[in-house]
Amino acid sequence: MRRAGIDTYRQPVLYLHRDCPVCRAEGFAALTRVRIGSGGRDTVAVLNVVTGDWLGAHEAALSEAAWQALRPEPGALAEFAHADPAESCSLLRAKVYGARLGEQDFAAVLRDVLAARLSDIELAAFVTACAGDRMDLDECIALTRAMVAVGDRLDWGAGPVLDKHCVGGLPGNRTTPIIVSIVAALGYRIPKTSSRAITSPAGTADVMATMTAVDLNLGELRRVVEREGGCLASGGRIRLSPADDMFIQVERPLDIDSGGQMVASILSKKAAAGSTHVLIDIPVGATAKIRTPAAADAIARRLTLVGEAMGLRVGIRLSDGRQPVGWGIGPALEARDVLAVLRCAPDAPRDLRERALDIAGAVLELLPESRPGRGREAATVALDSGAALEKFMAICEAQGGFREPGKARFARAFVSPTTGRVACINNRLLARVAKLAGAPNDPTAGVVCTLREGDPIDTGAPLFVVHAEAEGELAYALNYAAGHADILAIRSGPE
Amino acid sequence: MRRAGIDTYRQPVLYLHRDCPVCRAEGFAALTRVRIGSGGRDTVAVLNVVTGDWLGAHEAALSEAAWQALRPEPGALAEFAHADPAESCSLLRAKVYGARLGEQDFAAVLRDVLAARLSDIELAAFVTACAGDRMDLDECIALTRAMVAVGDRLDWGAGPVLDKHCVGGLPGNRTTPIIVSIVAALGYRIPKTSSRAITSPAGTADVMATMTAVDLNLGELRRVVEREGGCLASGGRIRLSPADDMFIQVERPLDIDSGGQMVASILSKKAAAGSTHVLIDIPVGATAKIRTPAAADAIARRLTLVGEAMGLRVGIRLSDGRQPVGWGIGPALEARDVLAVLRCAPDAPRDLRERALDIAGAVLELLPESRPGRGREAATVALDSGAALEKFMAICEAQGGFREPGKARFARAFVSPTTGRVACINNRLLARVAKLAGAPNDPTAGVVCTLREGDPIDTGAPLFVVHAEAEGELAYALNYAAGHADILAIRSGPE
Repeated sequence: MRRAGIDTYRQPVLYLHRDCPVCRAEGFAALTRVRIGSGGRDTVAVLNVVTGDWLGAHEAALSEAAWQALRPEPGALAEFAHADPAESCSLLRAKVYGARLGEQDFAAVLRDVLAARLSDIELAAFVTACAGDRMDLDECIALTRAMVAVGDRLDWGAGPVLDKHCVGGLPGNRTTPIIVSIVAALGYRIPKTSSRAITSPAGTADVMATMTAVDLNLGELRRVVEREGGCLASGGRIRLSPADDMFIQVERPLDIDSGGQMVASILSKKAAAGSTHVLIDIPVGATAKIRTPAAADAIARRLTLVGEAMGLRVGIRLSDGRQPVGWGIGPALEARDVLAVLRCAPDAPRDLRERALDIAGAVLELLPESRPGRGREAATVALDSGAALEKFMAICEAQGGFREPGKARFARAFVSPTTGRVACINNRLLARVAKLAGAPNDPTAGVVCTLREGDPIDTGAPLFVVHAEAEGELAYALNYAAGHADILAIRSGPE
Repeated sequence: MRRAGIDTYRQPVLYLHRDCPVCRAEGFAALTRVRIGSGGRDTVAVLNVVTGDWLGAHEAALSEAAWQALRPEPGALAEFAHADPAESCSLLRAKVYGARLGEQDFAAVLRDVLAARLSDIELAAFVTACAGDRMDLDECIALTRAMVAVGDRLDWGAGPVLDKHCVGGLPGNRTTPIIVSIVAALGYRIPKTSSRAITSPAGTADVMATMTAVDLNLGELRRVVEREGGCLASGGRIRLSPADDMFIQVERPLDIDSGGQMVASILSKKAAAGSTHVLIDIPVGATAKIRTPAAADAIARRLTLVGEAMGLRVGIRLSDGRQPVGWGIGPALEARDVLAVLRCAPDAPRDLRERALDIAGAVLELLPESRPGRGREAATVALDSGAALEKFMAICEAQGGFREPGKARFARAFVSPTTGRVACINNRLLARVAKLAGAPNDPTAGVVCTLREGDPIDTGAPLFVVHAEAEGELAYALNYAAGHADILAIRSGPE
C-alpha cells in the first residue's frame, strides 16, 4: 500500500489498477465499496479504478482520509474484500419511505455512520429523510438518546451546570465567548463546547480558534473547567455526540440543517456534556434560520419536551433575527468584535453587547434561586467591571494561551450604487458573500458591515467590506455581491 | 490538461496539485466544485487536491467522466473558476423542507441535473425528498411534464401505439421480450424501450443486451419499428426523459425507487415514446416492490390520474408478487428463460409463459375494438404458432443480429440444510444474492432457482445455483446466502 497523495476530504478512497489481480478476482469496479484490512485496523473505502501508469498492478493507493484511517507503514500489505452492506441500510430505506424509527434503530444507523459504513449518498438520504416535519416527538427523543449513547459523556458531579446555545442563522452573532466569560466570572460552571460552522461563515469554535487552542481532549477540557469554571473549546475531539460531526459533512454542502435533527443534535450534545440548565436563543427573522414566530414556537416546544425527556431544564429566548449582530462576519472578524465588547471599547458593536448581556442574564435566571432581572444586572456588572475580560483571558491561558486574531491580506469595499436608507438586510446572502470570500476555511476572510436597517447611505459609500486571503476569492465574492442588489436593499429618496 | 486515468463512474473529478497557482489564486480546496472550460465546452467537476508528485503544479488531470465531458486534446489549456451555485439548489432545499414544487421548478432542477450541476449528494437529497408520500398529485403531474420537456419526444403518427410496463421487484419476471414479440406479431405497434437495472439484478435492457444490440439511436430505433412494428431497445441513447438516467446513479446505491418519482419516471418515458395505450403490471407481495394491495391501489390510482393528465390511456393489472417468475435471475439467465418460452421448449418456466400471455392479452384488450378474453386467446395463438418467436428473431436481426446468451465461468449450488417444503421465498434477499454474484454488471452472473412455495426439498439438495464470473463473487454470494436462512424458508416435517 502507498499514499496516493490525493485529498478527497472525509471520504476514504482506494485506488487500484484495472489490471490488479484483486480487482479481477473480487469483481471490483469503480465505486465498489471495499473493506481494507491492514495491521489490525480496517476501513471501508470507495474504489476508483486507475487506468493510467502511476499505479502498478500490485499496488494499492489510499487517499488521505483512508490513509489516516488505516495509518499503515508505507509498503505494508493489506486484505481487500467487498464491504458487507451496512445492516442499517434497511432502516435508512424504511425512514426514507416514512417509517418511524426507535432508539435502537437510530443507534444502529449511528454506529454505521461512525464506522464510516455509510456513503455520503446514504448520509444525505438519511439527513433528508429526517428533515422538515419527518420526525415526530418520540423519534426525536429516540434519536437524541441514541446520539448520546454512541459517544462520550461528561459528569461534573452535583450542582448546576449551565449552558447556552443559539440555533444560528444570524451572521456575526458571536455572543457565546462573552456569555461564558460572564457566567464563569460570576462563579458558575459553564463547560461550553462549540462546533465548527455547518452552513454559516463561522461557528464559535472557528472564532475561538483564531484566539486560542480549541481542540482540547477530554482531560484538557476537564482541567480548564476545574480551574476556571468555564471553557470555550471545540467539541471535535471530545466525541460528545460524535455522529453529529459526520452528518455535517453532507449538511454543509446541502445547506440543510433540519428541524428534528437539529433538536437532537443540540440536546444530545448538552446531555452528553453533563449540562443541567440550558438556555436556547432562537433568532427569528425573514432571512434567519428560523423565519417565523410559528416555526420558532414549534421548535421551542420540541426543544422543551425533548429536554424534559433527557432530564434537562431548557429555557427558550426568542430574539430579533432580522439583521446581523456585530460588525464582522467570519472567524477573525467576529473575534475582533468579541474582544471589543469584552474590553468595553468605545467602538464595540452595541447590539452584540446588549444581546450577550440579555442571554447571560437569561442563563443565570434559569437557576431556581434567581429572580427576574437580577441575572442581567449581575451580568452587566461582570462585564463592565472587567471581570468577564479577565475570565476570558484566564480561560484562553488555560486552553494554551491567548493571541490576537489575524488580518486578511486583501480587503475591498462594496459600494452603494445609490443614495437612500438601508431598507433591509438579507442575512443569507450576506453570509454567502462571507463564505465566497473564504470563510470559515480562511479564518481571516469574511465581511464587515456596520450598517443597520434605517441607516442613511450615499452613492459610492461602502455598504460592506470584503476580506479575503486570495484575489480570486475577493473578486468572486464581490462579483456575487454585484449580482445580488438585495443583499442590502436601499430605499432611495429622503426619509 | 491530461487524462488522470482514474475511473470515478459518472462523477467528473478534477485533480490539481496543492501547489498549483490556480488553486491558490482561486482558493480551491478538496471538494470545491470547479467549472472547467476548454475548446468551447465546459463542465463542472469536483476537485481532489493532489499532494503527491504524479501531477505537476502546472498540470490539471481529469477523471474519465470529466475527460469524456470535455474531450480535450492532450495538453490543451483550460480555464478554471468556482462553479456558480446551481440556481435550483434553493428549490431542492425548499422540497427537502416540504414545499410543493411546480412544473417550472422541476424543470429548473432537471436542467441542472442534466448539466451535471448537482452533485451526487444533492441528487440523493432530491430523490429522498420526493420519496414516499412527499409528492402530491399535482406535483407528480408537474414532474412528469418537466421530465418529458427536457428530453426528446417520438411521434409515430396517427393510430394506437401500445406499451407495457412492470413496476418491478420480482426477480426473473422478464415478460417484456415475449409480450413485445406477441403484440408485434399480431400487427400492432409496440416500440418498447427499457432501462438498465436500477436496484434489481437485471433490467429488460440488460437481458436483451445478452442477445442483441440494444443501444440504438433515434434513427435506428425508428427503422426497426417501421420494419418490425416493435423493438426491444435500451432507452439510454434516445434521451426519452433523460433526467431519469441521472437519478438512477443515486437510486441504485440507495436502493430507493420511490412512489411519486416512480410514476413520473414511468409515464414520462411512455409519453415521450409516443405511446397511446399503456398496460402497467404491478406485482404485489410481501417482498415485492409493492408490498400490499393498499399500496398497489394507491400507485394504480396515481398512475391512472397522471396518465390522464398526460393524454395516455393507462390500464392496470395487479399480479401475484409473492415469489420469483421463471428460473433465472440475472441478465443471461433470464434471457435463457425468455428463449425457452418463445421456443415453446418443454422445460420452459410455465409461470413466465402464463404471465406473459396474461399481460399480452391485457395490452391487446386496452384497444377500444377488443373484447374481454379475446386478447389472451390471440396472444396464445401467436406464441404457440411460432409467430412470436419469428418476430423476436426478426426484431433482434433488425437491431443488429441475434446471439445466444453466454454462460458464467463458475456455478455452485447452495444446498438445503434440512428436509421439508418451501414455506416462502424472499424476493429481495434472493435478488441480493444475484447482485452479490455480479449481476447485472457481469451479464452471465446471477441465480437459478426452480423451487416454488410448497415444493418438497431434501437435506443436501440444491435450493438454488449461483453463477459468477469470479471466485470472489461466487464465495461472497454463497457466504451471504449462508448467513440468511430466510431466503428460502423451509417448513420441516411432513406436509
